Amino acid sequence: MPPSPPAPEQGAGASASARPAVPIGYLGPRGTFSDQALRGSTRADAVAPVACETVRDAIVAVRDRRVAWALVPIENSIEGPVTATLDTLAAEAPNVAIAGELVLAVRHCLIGHGAAVALEGIETVLSHPHASGQCSLFLRRELPRARVAAATSTAEAVRLVGERRDPALAAIGTPLAAELYGCAVLRERIEDRPDNETRFVWVGRASAEPRDVPLRSAPPASAPAKTSLVFWGPGADRAGWLVRCLDELARRGINLTKIESRPRRERLGHYMFFADLEGSARDARVAEALSGLRALCEEVRVLGSYPAA
Amino acid sequence: MPPSPPAPEQGAGASASARPAVPIGYLGPRGTFSDQALRGSTRADAVAPVACETVRDAIVAVRDRRVAWALVPIENSIEGPVTATLDTLAAEAPNVAIAGELVLAVRHCLIGHGAAVALEGIETVLSHPHASGQCSLFLRRELPRARVAAATSTAEAVRLVGERRDPALAAIGTPLAAELYGCAVLRERIEDRPDNETRFVWVGRASAEPRDVPLRSAPPASAPAKTSLVFWGPGADRAGWLVRCLDELARRGINLTKIESRPRRERLGHYMFFADLEGSARDARVAEALSGLRALCEEVRVLGSYPAA
Repeated sequence: MPPSPPAPEQGAGASASARPAVPIGYLGPRGTFSDQALRGSTRADAVAPVACETVRDAIVAVRDRRVAWALVPIENSIEGPVTATLDTLAAEAPNVAIAGELVLAVRHCLIGHGAAVALEGIETVLSHPHASGQCSLFLRRELPRARVAAATSTAEAVRLVGERRDPALAAIGTPLAAELYGCAVLRERIEDRPDNETRFVWVGRASAEPRDVPLRSAPPASAPAKTSLVFWGPGADRAGWLVRCLDELARRGINLTKIESRPRRERLGHYMFFADLEGSARDARVAEALSGLRALCEEVRVLGSYPAA
Repeated sequence: MPPSPPAPEQGAGASASARPAVPIGYLGPRGTFSDQALRGSTRADAVAPVACETVRDAIVAVRDRRVAWALVPIENSIEGPVTATLDTLAAEAPNVAIAGELVLAVRHCLIGHGAAVALEGIETVLSHPHASGQCSLFLRRELPRARVAAATSTAEAVRLVGERRDPALAAIGTPLAAELYGCAVLRERIEDRPDNETRFVWVGRASAEPRDVPLRSAPPASAPAKTSLVFWGPGADRAGWLVRCLDELARRGINLTKIESRPRRERLGHYMFFADLEGSARDARVAEALSGLRALCEEVRVLGSYPAA
């Protein structure tokens, strides 16, 4: 499919309020988990959600000023890092920054075309392979005879169920998708692990401030600051280089909450490092550590400082 | 689907050689990229490939002595770590070890039911979402009108194309799948990035040696040793803990070739660390570093020492 410039969705943000609705990119189509995260954390009259085909498209739309913000997944507790988000932030969008985060429990629903659909009659369950994989215990126990079929997203699976209106067909998806596509939730919370979480980040232009994120309720003023960065260097393949880098943080008492190596230039073996640390890049201690890090690295990019979720 | 005990595939390893074929688990069904990696690196008469439903099943089959080895993907240069492999090795299989690695370039093919299928007539392209995502430039350029539909694996997509024999239907998959399911490769190397690589590891029982891996050609004796480990500790949330851990390696001149944080107990915020380092756990220097690391950690598990690819 050729990429088309995103346009705010009809009906969204169509309020009579004085301020125009803020266009926000998310991983579409409508009814995805990203869509649910976006609608759940913002005021409907303040934002104009813009469905994007990929997380890269959503971030690039911020870079190119086609949307003001993007809300994109960056990490899932079962699937791991969302590499497209990390790679786009590191390589393709120097003028964007992370201005906030959101951690959401992943809940899946079994969805039929109507509330009267009986579990015994379901022959096929459609979903994105990640979602059906995360509900495998439920599927084995409750629908042992059903065939699992793949869809390009959970929202697309629910849309198909709504279109076909076949009692032998069900989908795994969000309550929002069930509502959008005229379907009914048959079972809630069918995920294998109740502790499956996804972390989303708010991505805006580099000049935007965390307080500008169009949240329904702002994070508490007491929320500690957090800084995300990516760094790489000519010494990354020498013993001790990474230790020296991390020691710039440690000897200033700055805690690291996450570290992730990712191949650079898409090849295994040449790595860049994504790190989250406690504190804001404006704190003197963090600023000093960053300048120590810069002396060791080819590149240190601060992806943003923002209130921790 | 209920898990069924894997059984060696018919026709595989059916030679008259003196030694029985070695059962090896891989991520099935037949014709997947894992299958191609396995068949490409071993002698057909020496191994009996056993298709498993998930990478976890393949590793657990080694643990439970239903197969001698498993060949499983652990990292892809675009998609990132294969978290199911890391998590299963860390938490579910204390008696298994990595005994070798294999880095393969990821090549995708466009596959039709026969060689006469014309690109202009293709209306639907079936594949696993990862594979179709990795061929998006080709699809936009060569098949702009075709719809992309999801399948549970690339091999399943090719199987369906072979079954339906519809000239409007094509799949993205391996040449091996095309051969297995009576299909034809229409275009080779349609992936967007020529440098997309996947790293596989050979997983065997902890007592197995790297030289026991049933390879077609053994790695050169000069191949440097590499050790994979996972560690976590009570101090993981304190400033400097990770630096002290890594310094146990650095001050002995031991280079780290990879580090990856993964949530423990499936929650974001409590991490374990996967690291690859240069050298064998039998080297005195590495052994010393590991014992230094153990003093700082709740758990240090050596996942294996093996020749680097």
